[in-house]
Amino acid sequence: MNDYASRLHAAIRDKGNAVCVGLDPRLDQLPAQLLPDDADNASMSVDAAAEAYEKFCCRIVDVVAPLVPVVKPQAAFFEELGPSGTKALANVIRHARSAGLLVICDAKRGDIGSTAEAYARAYLAGADPNTAIWGADALTVNPYLGSDTLQPFVEIATERGAGVYVLVRTSNPGAGTFQDRVTDGETLFECVARTVEKLCAQTCGELDYGSIGAVVGATYPDELNHLRSLMPHVPLLVPGYGSQGGTAADVAGAFDADGLGAVVNSSRGIIFAARQKTYRERFRPDEWEKAVEEATRAMIADLAAHTPCGCLR
Amino acid sequence: MNDYASRLHAAIRDKGNAVCVGLDPRLDQLPAQLLPDDADNASMSVDAAAEAYEKFCCRIVDVVAPLVPVVKPQAAFFEELGPSGTKALANVIRHARSAGLLVICDAKRGDIGSTAEAYARAYLAGADPNTAIWGADALTVNPYLGSDTLQPFVEIATERGAGVYVLVRTSNPGAGTFQDRVTDGETLFECVARTVEKLCAQTCGELDYGSIGAVVGATYPDELNHLRSLMPHVPLLVPGYGSQGGTAADVAGAFDADGLGAVVNSSRGIIFAARQKTYRERFRPDEWEKAVEEATRAMIADLAAHTPCGCLR
Repeated sequence: MNDYASRLHAAIRDKGNAVCVGLDPRLDQLPAQLLPDDADNASMSVDAAAEAYEKFCCRIVDVVAPLVPVVKPQAAFFEELGPSGTKALANVIRHARSAGLLVICDAKRGDIGSTAEAYARAYLAGADPNTAIWGADALTVNPYLGSDTLQPFVEIATERGAGVYVLVRTSNPGAGTFQDRVTDGETLFECVARTVEKLCAQTCGELDYGSIGAVVGATYPDELNHLRSLMPHVPLLVPGYGSQGGTAADVAGAFDADGLGAVVNSSRGIIFAARQKTYRERFRPDEWEKAVEEATRAMIADLAAHTPCGCLR
Repeated sequence: MNDYASRLHAAIRDKGNAVCVGLDPRLDQLPAQLLPDDADNASMSVDAAAEAYEKFCCRIVDVVAPLVPVVKPQAAFFEELGPSGTKALANVIRHARSAGLLVICDAKRGDIGSTAEAYARAYLAGADPNTAIWGADALTVNPYLGSDTLQPFVEIATERGAGVYVLVRTSNPGAGTFQDRVTDGETLFECVARTVEKLCAQTCGELDYGSIGAVVGATYPDELNHLRSLMPHVPLLVPGYGSQGGTAADVAGAFDADGLGAVVNSSRGIIFAARQKTYRERFRPDEWEKAVEEATRAMIADLAAHTPCGCLR
């Protein structure tokens, strides 16, 4: 059972929760302890910044690996530092996988034909991290270019036991500009959802879930319930919990009755927990990892109390 | 006049054509002369492959820089080689800009809020290549997430004199899956086109063209005419000429009467020209750069003969 959905659900059962920790490093929010002594963000070299990102993310991985099943590094922040940033991203992915975590690389890639194949081959490693140079278990992809452009991702993911999360309903305030357009009684995001369910069915076999997932924001809870039912075989990645305003009750609809079928992501709320008032009062600045741990445990408890995830424990 | 559209049109006038050469390196098609003597593609290290990509693309840049205004490296092929591939991409962009070319980085990025900002800051350098670590003049972006997610690209592009090309109508066979959906009498791609025209107007001032462009495939010629008229201020990037089946007549509608307002991209048809029968008969394998030059000149002549571009000469 090396397919992505089976590996994902084994990890969720093992950890007893469906929390995904988003690794979105930002230079101006890193713990001071991780920066060179004479650090001045404006003049810091990209190599020094990339090193700090790597150290920060790897230390978060060490804190959360015993607690949660999945982490999701955000490629953009690493790419902002150029080639040395992308190297840090590769190292963080490698470190997370050695620590036993599943890794969803959040890069929102998408292109046509053989170009899509190149992205898929680059990022989708699946069960064996050495199958792809970026070594991720799964990748987020953008559907705008059409369903033929999703096919290379589906094929390479299936071949390698990797997963793909197609953007269906994003968590930003303006998500509706194009996603809400109704054609023949169906919104664009519902149409994408149906396409994803169909692609996923190809990868499903006898299993309850296939390996083609969907990104569905926590910030639109009614739609989340509806999309869960439109995509019964599709693992969901739910961003928008915490800092973006989504609550545990908002994401409850993402899960099936067994607490499976979804992971809920929190980035800033966990990785920069030490900057929040609650944790600043309890921990010294150099104890920032304790704040990360506490925030992770708090999210796990919150989801257990207000979603079907509770039955995983 | 450091805005992208003005710089683009100055370069088009200077070179007398609107050809964009796509830099899409593929290991199995590189000239043998660029590979290590004992090269075996399957076992070649990514570092060696990245070095070959960089050498190949830089030599193409040297051939085409006196002839055309723009090159468009495809990020996917470089990313497939991991961090050393991304370093090669950065070096190719830098080399192309020093050679006086404009560079559109074809990475089709897109994300929400501050993440979109990170991508924009990473890639969009504008007039001064040192403003961004990837140093491109322009970047392709994906609109699916909504118009609020395009805004950070628009702002940073405007600030830096850079350009953005939003995917409107892609050139792949399945482009229509989502792009053709009609709502209130308007397709999704027309709706995106209107949004791009509106965003572009913000950047336009007194000029004929703004710096927010659109990607419109050559493979749908009727739509190209229509989209040109829907987006009168928007510079177009037209992929799909040549290997993908688009002809010069197909792309004629992309240009205004002065032969401005668009660039037409060819990748494989130029960079791997030496593999085509016509050029294989005329040039030895080690004369592959002559094939690149001839194919570029042939495309310039073809556009001059069959599009309003002819009046640029």
